[in-house]
Amino acid sequence: MAREDFQVHARAGGARAGVLRTAHGEVRTPAFVPLASSGTVKALDAPEVEQLGYDIVLGNTFHLFIQPGHEHIARMGGLHEFMGWRRPIVTDSGGFQVFSMGHGSVADELKRSRGAGEGRVVSIDEEGVRFRSYLDGAERFMGPETSMEVQAALGSDVALAFDECTPYHVDRDYTQRSMERTHRWLDRCVAWHGEHAPEGQLLFGIVQGGVHEDLRRESAERVGAAPVDGIAIGGSLGQDKGQMRQVVEWSVAALPEESPRHLLGVGDVDDILHAVGAGIDLFDCATPTRLGRHGTALVADPAGRWRLDLAKPAERESREPIAAGCPCPACRGHTRGYLHYLVRAKELTGARLITLHNLTFMALLMEQLREAIAQNRYGEFAEGVMRGENP
Amino acid sequence: MAREDFQVHARAGGARAGVLRTAHGEVRTPAFVPLASSGTVKALDAPEVEQLGYDIVLGNTFHLFIQPGHEHIARMGGLHEFMGWRRPIVTDSGGFQVFSMGHGSVADELKRSRGAGEGRVVSIDEEGVRFRSYLDGAERFMGPETSMEVQAALGSDVALAFDECTPYHVDRDYTQRSMERTHRWLDRCVAWHGEHAPEGQLLFGIVQGGVHEDLRRESAERVGAAPVDGIAIGGSLGQDKGQMRQVVEWSVAALPEESPRHLLGVGDVDDILHAVGAGIDLFDCATPTRLGRHGTALVADPAGRWRLDLAKPAERESREPIAAGCPCPACRGHTRGYLHYLVRAKELTGARLITLHNLTFMALLMEQLREAIAQNRYGEFAEGVMRGENP
Repeated sequence: MAREDFQVHARAGGARAGVLRTAHGEVRTPAFVPLASSGTVKALDAPEVEQLGYDIVLGNTFHLFIQPGHEHIARMGGLHEFMGWRRPIVTDSGGFQVFSMGHGSVADELKRSRGAGEGRVVSIDEEGVRFRSYLDGAERFMGPETSMEVQAALGSDVALAFDECTPYHVDRDYTQRSMERTHRWLDRCVAWHGEHAPEGQLLFGIVQGGVHEDLRRESAERVGAAPVDGIAIGGSLGQDKGQMRQVVEWSVAALPEESPRHLLGVGDVDDILHAVGAGIDLFDCATPTRLGRHGTALVADPAGRWRLDLAKPAERESREPIAAGCPCPACRGHTRGYLHYLVRAKELTGARLITLHNLTFMALLMEQLREAIAQNRYGEFAEGVMRGENP
Repeated sequence: MAREDFQVHARAGGARAGVLRTAHGEVRTPAFVPLASSGTVKALDAPEVEQLGYDIVLGNTFHLFIQPGHEHIARMGGLHEFMGWRRPIVTDSGGFQVFSMGHGSVADELKRSRGAGEGRVVSIDEEGVRFRSYLDGAERFMGPETSMEVQAALGSDVALAFDECTPYHVDRDYTQRSMERTHRWLDRCVAWHGEHAPEGQLLFGIVQGGVHEDLRRESAERVGAAPVDGIAIGGSLGQDKGQMRQVVEWSVAALPEESPRHLLGVGDVDDILHAVGAGIDLFDCATPTRLGRHGTALVADPAGRWRLDLAKPAERESREPIAAGCPCPACRGHTRGYLHYLVRAKELTGARLITLHNLTFMALLMEQLREAIAQNRYGEFAEGVMRGENP
């Protein structure tokens, strides 16, 4: 069944380039989605993110539910109006954060691989999750209907169905039972969404199933058969890149061809290259912005995992830019030595400039990648990136 | 004696508008000088400050001496090159910070009125000041020659002579002896500067004398007669605005007409209006940027001391901008309610947007003020600002 809201224009092997159409405009895919977790891409404001060339950002259902609250954002005209962003927004399900709380911080600093926790989660049952707010310790509840209601109030263009983000360390039995409950939650999300969703809001289901091939296949088939507008791949993606890539391949293989596919929380260059090759259309990840705030710049250096730690003593006297030819304000106006100093002195300007650089890097990567698919030379392009030739 | 590097083009009562010429270009006066204390206007980068319309910024001799060190900045090509700022820079003498250390923080948060302290100052004598670095506790020394040497290495366009910033709470006898030592230090600065200063660097002397009319007059005459390119008014300016204005008037009355005059550390709107009326040409102050980082916006509201605290509950649901018609990114793109949220959530974006607003406000005020002097209607303009009609 062909979709009106998602069209593939070009293919190169398993990779595909297309357009996702939403109530607030088009998203060119494959797309990297910067995190505006708490209603702002940290250190930037919305017009700047638009200028960087991004079509879409991700708002965090859980964080915005806690602070400032979805009713407040609705009164302020919805999340677009609230943050001054006119283009599409995807909101996550809230599941990842709510299930991660046991491990302490639920800031976007939280690493995906840490998995679910017990700490401030009071109970998980068929209805949903009871937890204590990290803001004031008050007991709160989130279930499939709550998640949908919050996302409706936020007015996002793409809502994600509520899921339990099953961690790596639980056993197969727990993973299976959790996945099955996530499937039942999907049905409740679909029902709520059908009745109450704001006009034009798309709903994506989430594939779970841990690192088990049969579970991932089962989940992909189940979610793919549901009346959803797209599919996200979530949960534990394994303990290393190899396992993560298997999980992606297993999941994609069982997904309907015509639906847009969002790989949640993945943003390393090599992982994106692989996943695009496997047929993924959308990515979101805290890494580029988080690294930027902590002084690490993304550079075309596969041997260094595409990372340059500007705080290192070696950069102190460098009068070179992060990357010659990069059009970002950090590279156009400043040396590595100055950025090193700003990072060491914990100056906001440093966090901001490196964030701008990293988002410029990701925007360039995705633009080049889409172009390579359009020209049916994706494999060659990806190999070039893996040799450090781009972006 | 007419000066080549400073010319007054227009007068309106005691107020005057002119141009200060430096090695890195012209400064239109009266000018507000934003603080780039540690080599950055906090949360902004140099090209942004230029875009805001500022001709000059102030670098902090003491902070840059401690971190990253003036020799390092010299190796990096000087302060302009280091921070990517192409226009004029004034560096302060280091005296204010070094004498303020006893009171704890020496960040730019330090309030001018707190005065000198004993805490980490080891000794003050004719040679200069021994103190412990706030960075690593190491004993360091700064005297007139050190201050000049640091400012030469930084390569600022305007250097300030080393002074003891005498606080309000000391007695007349201490104030007088301190002032006399500052005068002797001025001679040593002039001598060092004459031999070693980078080509084109201007040197301003600093008037001290506390809140005593005769001492201020004596100091103004002494500094005004020295072979310096301009005069700054420093030290304790009194315990309230009334006393501060007297100190400014006493000092200006005894200064040579042809020299540019910089009032150190003053930046409240009403104080600027008064001081410009008294013949001051340059101001620097941490307040606009510091307030911005802490969520307070400058607005045309004399009754509220030109301050709007965006963190207040009353702003939570406001869908108005800080100021209608203001061309800054905070006002063009965002509501008070969103800024309220960002401030409460301690988001960098909030600190940055309000900093941009406050520096836009100050740039507009100074631009309008210069125009009013040029049109010989300064008194009328100042009255309008005091009624909340501008900027």
